[in-house]
Amino acid sequence: MTEQTPSSDLPETERTRHRRLREQGSVSRADLDAILKAGFLCHLGVVVDGTPMVVPTVYGADQNTLYFHGSVASRSLIASPRATICLTVTHVDGLVLSRSVFEHGVNYRSAMVYGVPRTVTDPEEKLEGLRLLTEHTAPGQWDYARRPNRKELAATALLALSLDEASVKIRTGPPEDGDGPDAELGIWAGVIPLHTVWGALEPDPLLDEGITAPAHLAERAHQHLG
Amino acid sequence: MTEQTPSSDLPETERTRHRRLREQGSVSRADLDAILKAGFLCHLGVVVDGTPMVVPTVYGADQNTLYFHGSVASRSLIASPRATICLTVTHVDGLVLSRSVFEHGVNYRSAMVYGVPRTVTDPEEKLEGLRLLTEHTAPGQWDYARRPNRKELAATALLALSLDEASVKIRTGPPEDGDGPDAELGIWAGVIPLHTVWGALEPDPLLDEGITAPAHLAERAHQHLG
Repeated sequence: MTEQTPSSDLPETERTRHRRLREQGSVSRADLDAILKAGFLCHLGVVVDGTPMVVPTVYGADQNTLYFHGSVASRSLIASPRATICLTVTHVDGLVLSRSVFEHGVNYRSAMVYGVPRTVTDPEEKLEGLRLLTEHTAPGQWDYARRPNRKELAATALLALSLDEASVKIRTGPPEDGDGPDAELGIWAGVIPLHTVWGALEPDPLLDEGITAPAHLAERAHQHLG
Repeated sequence: MTEQTPSSDLPETERTRHRRLREQGSVSRADLDAILKAGFLCHLGVVVDGTPMVVPTVYGADQNTLYFHGSVASRSLIASPRATICLTVTHVDGLVLSRSVFEHGVNYRSAMVYGVPRTVTDPEEKLEGLRLLTEHTAPGQWDYARRPNRKELAATALLALSLDEASVKIRTGPPEDGDGPDAELGIWAGVIPLHTVWGALEPDPLLDEGITAPAHLAERAHQHLG
């Protein structure tokens, strides 16, 4: 973890420069932070024997660094410890239903973060990184559940990825063919939104009946994610 | 598209062999089909200049082939047209809240498909691939909206990826520390499910008031995805 304050805009690199659909590209650091905050699942891209591998995993983040479990990237890290990875977070917000199939699309928010991940070895940073990961995914659980003991900490591989190089894309709003010739076709057009919602808690069948769910979990039920 | 009938089990390759968390690995072809059917967003992994790039995009599929827009992979395809890609589809079904932070996890279904994508050039297959992609993402729209004309078809790059090499992972059920020493801690444990739900239709502000939404769209509102 560095103490550096994140800049308000995302610096452009050869990799993060927006080539396609430039109107959907964002260079806002606030957009990046909001996208990372809105979910907990990312897709991690690594190269193994020259072949890309895309693995879903959970992450946590502070202002400068993303943390995720090292086990998912272990094969690529062993093969090439200084290799760049790409970590992508995507939220689908709806389908854009245009008059023409050609103009159909998706409303979404997506962030791609590039960098060489660092294995966290300092015990204090490891504990803090795991706290961030836990609290990002399941807020309130770090203080409620049993924290990792020394043996579990040693068995956990944690990776850190700087947020310095990132690319953000966002598409919002209605279809774009409402003022074109297809508007005359009489076809309904608009957006059908997609929401991610927490359901009702499902207690472990092995749970003692007297143990009730803590407020931070009970309150989460039926709330929207992201 | 080949006429080959898919086998009931997924053949194991060096890439798809389950190394970690083997109890979550599936070799069921039916599981693969169900995961692909349950969503429409994938994360496409390509290698550009030695670096992995993970891009979200929509897909469609028949029994043997995945179809997706070629534009998302254009940089990698131009650089190395015979390169293998990895296309991953993930559904998060809930959070597994165990007694210990170490045992926390995610209920999910995930499929990774590997292969060398093929650019679809045959006009008939291109139209059929676009139909599959459209109907997979927005069922009913291929027959309702205006289909691509010759110019639009020519402007669309479509890629096909065989489903022959795929890896499936699934995690379901309650936490796993209910019969261990942590069960004595009196901590609530269970699962909080996560659902993806369609919202109410949002008509394009430019839409004529007399145009009402067709049944296949109106019925979709408030239904669960996947």
